Amino acid sequence: MAASALDIATTLIRCPSVTPEEGGALAALEALLENKGFRVNRVTFQDDETPDVENLFATIGSGAPHFVFAGHTDVVPAGNASDWSHGPFEGAVADGVLFGRGAVDMKGGIASFAAAALDFVSERGADFGGTLSFLITGDEEGPAVNGTVKLLKWAEAQGHSFDACIVGEPTNPSALGDTIKVGRRGSLSGIVTVTGVQGHAAYPHLADNPIPGLVKLMAALNALKLDDGNERFEPSNLEIVTVDVGNPAFNVIPARAEARFNIRYNDTWTLDGLKQKITETLEAADLGSLKLDLTFKRDASESFLTNDEALIATLTDAVEAETGRRPELSTGGGTSDARFIKNYCPVVEFGLVGQTMHKVDECVAVADLDRLAAIYKRFLDGYFGHIEA
Amino acid sequence: MAASALDIATTLIRCPSVTPEEGGALAALEALLENKGFRVNRVTFQDDETPDVENLFATIGSGAPHFVFAGHTDVVPAGNASDWSHGPFEGAVADGVLFGRGAVDMKGGIASFAAAALDFVSERGADFGGTLSFLITGDEEGPAVNGTVKLLKWAEAQGHSFDACIVGEPTNPSALGDTIKVGRRGSLSGIVTVTGVQGHAAYPHLADNPIPGLVKLMAALNALKLDDGNERFEPSNLEIVTVDVGNPAFNVIPARAEARFNIRYNDTWTLDGLKQKITETLEAADLGSLKLDLTFKRDASESFLTNDEALIATLTDAVEAETGRRPELSTGGGTSDARFIKNYCPVVEFGLVGQTMHKVDECVAVADLDRLAAIYKRFLDGYFGHIEA
Repeated sequence: MAASALDIATTLIRCPSVTPEEGGALAALEALLENKGFRVNRVTFQDDETPDVENLFATIGSGAPHFVFAGHTDVVPAGNASDWSHGPFEGAVADGVLFGRGAVDMKGGIASFAAAALDFVSERGADFGGTLSFLITGDEEGPAVNGTVKLLKWAEAQGHSFDACIVGEPTNPSALGDTIKVGRRGSLSGIVTVTGVQGHAAYPHLADNPIPGLVKLMAALNALKLDDGNERFEPSNLEIVTVDVGNPAFNVIPARAEARFNIRYNDTWTLDGLKQKITETLEAADLGSLKLDLTFKRDASESFLTNDEALIATLTDAVEAETGRRPELSTGGGTSDARFIKNYCPVVEFGLVGQTMHKVDECVAVADLDRLAAIYKRFLDGYFGHIEA
Repeated sequence: MAASALDIATTLIRCPSVTPEEGGALAALEALLENKGFRVNRVTFQDDETPDVENLFATIGSGAPHFVFAGHTDVVPAGNASDWSHGPFEGAVADGVLFGRGAVDMKGGIASFAAAALDFVSERGADFGGTLSFLITGDEEGPAVNGTVKLLKWAEAQGHSFDACIVGEPTNPSALGDTIKVGRRGSLSGIVTVTGVQGHAAYPHLADNPIPGLVKLMAALNALKLDDGNERFEPSNLEIVTVDVGNPAFNVIPARAEARFNIRYNDTWTLDGLKQKITETLEAADLGSLKLDLTFKRDASESFLTNDEALIATLTDAVEAETGRRPELSTGGGTSDARFIKNYCPVVEFGLVGQTMHKVDECVAVADLDRLAAIYKRFLDGYFGHIEA
């Protein structure tokens, strides 16, 4: 492959693009793509109470099918740089491994796709029988308000409609080729508050302790079996993620206690149906004179499953041809921007190995960068009809 | 009565003796008592990690019986002074009511006893047939480390042994004469910690959420019926006073969850027996691979019941003679320094009406100050054999 995924990844890692900073990463990508004939737009979005964020949309070719690669150049903070074996924004290579924040999540994925796309365009020219775009945000690790959601709307307003998308997140648990994600569970978070009456621990009859009530509600949530999962999805799961009262005094009965939960749910449930189930479960508890308040967070997402057989088969075949392994089709794990993209076109996720993401010494084997670039290149050839699927 | 409880209370309130500040309050008391022939010692105690605190011990007379009045001149903070109708350290009287921090808890109680003692000594001289002492700390509302505990040891080392004590805390719920406290429940506090494995809420199989385990333990504590109480004591009671995880992220399963509890227990239990019961209850829960840690706070106190019939009868009769009401003998409510004094001599508690204690606009009816002084004076006369009990 002529374009070097390692060179591009190294350039991107050296841009300190911790959300919401652009850090030079989008500028570097812009120069690279513009140089090869892509039409590049840099778009900044803003919103109340969140920082302005830069995004990039680049496109080449014309007409259908329109394939879009989605990703993010922003990264999570490096933490204490002195804990790293190599500087988190240095891009050092040691023993065939590239170190740096974003190495797998997901500057490495962008670099592999960029290398594949540059080679593809070098070989086929701009008239390759369709349209190829990059949808790159700088707000995936942050509030995700000024990123993919708005960039999709912006692209639609510019007249773009997409036929298929790959998100280059690190989907593989242990080796390149393990897993393609073809859907995601939905996510629903909520806050349960119980309010009683504050008082002195020595005079409990003058108080109404909210904690026993909250314990009942938490026990009811923990006992809830939502479903058994199905062929494509793991069972839905609820986790109480925090309980907080914040009372520093052993001799004071508090007035208020709060628990927060997160549910990852499969396509057995609609979002509204699940909210109804949680509400009924909590309201069934006998709280006496305590007051229950339940609030669902507004950032809930629906579950989805991508059924585009051609997209999945083309990617699966490309992975198998380059790695010798047939990837598992999974819906497990966390959310990604795919939850927004699925409203515009069929979307799957495939990228590097995720083991070191968000950790100290995040890193990627240089061989994986090259192999992923080869997979993406083979996918593009297949998707645009230049090889037999 | 010649000595004015109101004057003394006003003087004390004007000394801003918020723990650990002496604020001039002990100096004022020293001057008053020394002037009447008391031998007064001011003793400062110190300890690691707590402020130095001044205390006062004053004594008059000689030989047995040795009666000691115990109290504290320190007060809790006033909060926002502008919320008060009258300055918290001003000592204003309006419509027959004295306002100020400490009015009932317990500068007012000290003032009433001081007025009684001064009158008693004026009438009887120093040779009244026993010893009368003041044991006054400046560390009751604070850590209680450099106060009564050390002052009792100090007095013992000076050769003092006591035969009876009244603590002048505000024992009456609504009217002077309601309640004499003749014992206290014990208090035991503890911290229950459950440790699991942190992880991502979308990958619960890689984590071990400690919250369901803590919920089980809290449910077991809430379900625990310790006893039914008895003739002199209310049932023992456990309150979980706080639960804290402090995890700000909905997508993170926390590593650790903590609950804190406080038990007020009666003489059905020894401290060690109760600790054993709590330990067994928690260890009986099935926590899987979660780790339980239980720590009891070191400031636990044993329950006690004072059985000195002469002390109780003399005080009860004095209360009835001055108020027309026969006080209830109670063991309810919170702890006081009586928990330390009971190791030295029989102790009961009787003081003003507690309704406004620790609150904005803490206040006492001037008539109550005078009536309490009369009760204490009548008690001293009775106790030292100058009237028929």
